[in-house]
Amino acid sequence: MLYLIGLGLSYKSDITVRGLEAIKKCNRVYLEHYTSILMAATQEELEEFYGKSIVLADRELVESGCEDILRDADKEDVAFLVVGDPFGATTHTDLVLRAKKQGIPVDVIHNASIMNAVGSCGLQLYNFGQTVSMVFFTDSWRPDSWYDKIWENRKIGLHTLVLLDIKVKEQSLENMARGRLIYEPPRYMSISQCCEQLLEIEENRGTKAYTPDTPAVAISRLGSAQQAFKSGTIAELANYDSGEPLHSLVILGRQCHELELEYLMEFADDKQKLRQDVIKDQEYFKPAPWVPTEEDDN
Amino acid sequence: MLYLIGLGLSYKSDITVRGLEAIKKCNRVYLEHYTSILMAATQEELEEFYGKSIVLADRELVESGCEDILRDADKEDVAFLVVGDPFGATTHTDLVLRAKKQGIPVDVIHNASIMNAVGSCGLQLYNFGQTVSMVFFTDSWRPDSWYDKIWENRKIGLHTLVLLDIKVKEQSLENMARGRLIYEPPRYMSISQCCEQLLEIEENRGTKAYTPDTPAVAISRLGSAQQAFKSGTIAELANYDSGEPLHSLVILGRQCHELELEYLMEFADDKQKLRQDVIKDQEYFKPAPWVPTEEDDN
Repeated sequence: MLYLIGLGLSYKSDITVRGLEAIKKCNRVYLEHYTSILMAATQEELEEFYGKSIVLADRELVESGCEDILRDADKEDVAFLVVGDPFGATTHTDLVLRAKKQGIPVDVIHNASIMNAVGSCGLQLYNFGQTVSMVFFTDSWRPDSWYDKIWENRKIGLHTLVLLDIKVKEQSLENMARGRLIYEPPRYMSISQCCEQLLEIEENRGTKAYTPDTPAVAISRLGSAQQAFKSGTIAELANYDSGEPLHSLVILGRQCHELELEYLMEFADDKQKLRQDVIKDQEYFKPAPWVPTEEDDN
Repeated sequence: MLYLIGLGLSYKSDITVRGLEAIKKCNRVYLEHYTSILMAATQEELEEFYGKSIVLADRELVESGCEDILRDADKEDVAFLVVGDPFGATTHTDLVLRAKKQGIPVDVIHNASIMNAVGSCGLQLYNFGQTVSMVFFTDSWRPDSWYDKIWENRKIGLHTLVLLDIKVKEQSLENMARGRLIYEPPRYMSISQCCEQLLEIEENRGTKAYTPDTPAVAISRLGSAQQAFKSGTIAELANYDSGEPLHSLVILGRQCHELELEYLMEFADDKQKLRQDVIKDQEYFKPAPWVPTEEDDN
């Protein structure tokens, strides 16, 4: 059996009881180690908690070396651990497909991920649109396809969850060119860097998918004891010191209900300013002309 | 301390280790009992597993009787258990706000919910739009505000998660009128009933937010040993016997990537027909005219 087991967000004890029972049966345990990190537990602490040694699986092992992971999984139990839930990232559906083609039974043990736990900022999960990823810009690579997605969401009033880039086991261009397996220290995007990149692209595009005054919520270290939320405009959050990783950002949609706003005000430096910013942003961002108002029964 | 603890989807052992540790410290334990059910565990099994007795909290107790739940929570530990994750439903942000106003510390222990575990059908969570709820139609009440939301999602290519109605502790009109506290047996919407209601409203509206040939995925008993997926058109799924609850449905968006399609084909009666249906639906549902293609960098 191949077990895909979500570890949740932060602590070693965020694993489910059922997930822990499954790991204890397994002959080999892999931990996916490139799309996220468990904030409050080291590899050694996990190994002690599970009573098993863990193989860290980087992108290369997972994408090219599925065979290693799947070896003998038809005869013995193998665990593939994923921070959050196993179905956040594409590659894990790929792993399941490969297992199924080899006749290996698969059991998925779900857990919380940023995709649902983001609801703890007080914004309704029902009102989120598509999720976007913000990568670290370089001098030559400043991808902005997320811009249209935020715009699409906001045109129909929806909030946008922005996932911030993580660079783990990254090589410098020079080391890569010389084939030296030397890795840079891990990097995690901060809220302020994300907001600066948002503002840069809006300035370039100029089509006002959002403005510097658009309200957003910074979510830091979600699910850990150091969890923090901060509400403010994108311009304000560009100057916010968000502290230790991990971080995510939610850009508000045009629809923001009173109960949502009341919750967000708890996280604002200036509660009344936030309320005014939300009202102004809603007012500014009129419904797109194609909404069929004459048939709308709301 | 007020603990809001997610129970996950199905088994008593789907609770996290940390969640279980918290319950064991609590003086009172409430289980939210009207928005979902834990599929593979009875109240008695939970009580034995926790070593605590449980108070079932219906909508009335949660919405009007927050005081009962919050009583003395500044001095002792109280657990409020929610199937899935605590931030799926509005009322629980309300509970947190009330606790904060009374100076009661709150700790949230997250878990998987349908909102993220739906990824196990193979569709990318990133590509979901707003979530809609389908309620049981009656002779006089056939609400269809979800129709525009599905249309909005599909105009920008996104999948729609449809949550199916649950009626727990429901009174008949006659018993309600006579003030008799007699409750009907619980009811859970089936996939076929949901699809019939989808088709009825599309026939009434006629604006083709979707068609009978639009592909969808039925998700039944997610996270349990009897978990089942079925891919097909909405018309096909209107004749699908989905068996025991709980069920959800995903209506595909215009964007369906090859890896997503490959995964869905595993759940289809006729794999090649599904592929053709997906291609036809994508072809039919052209991008909306307001998409700024001249600036699009994809």
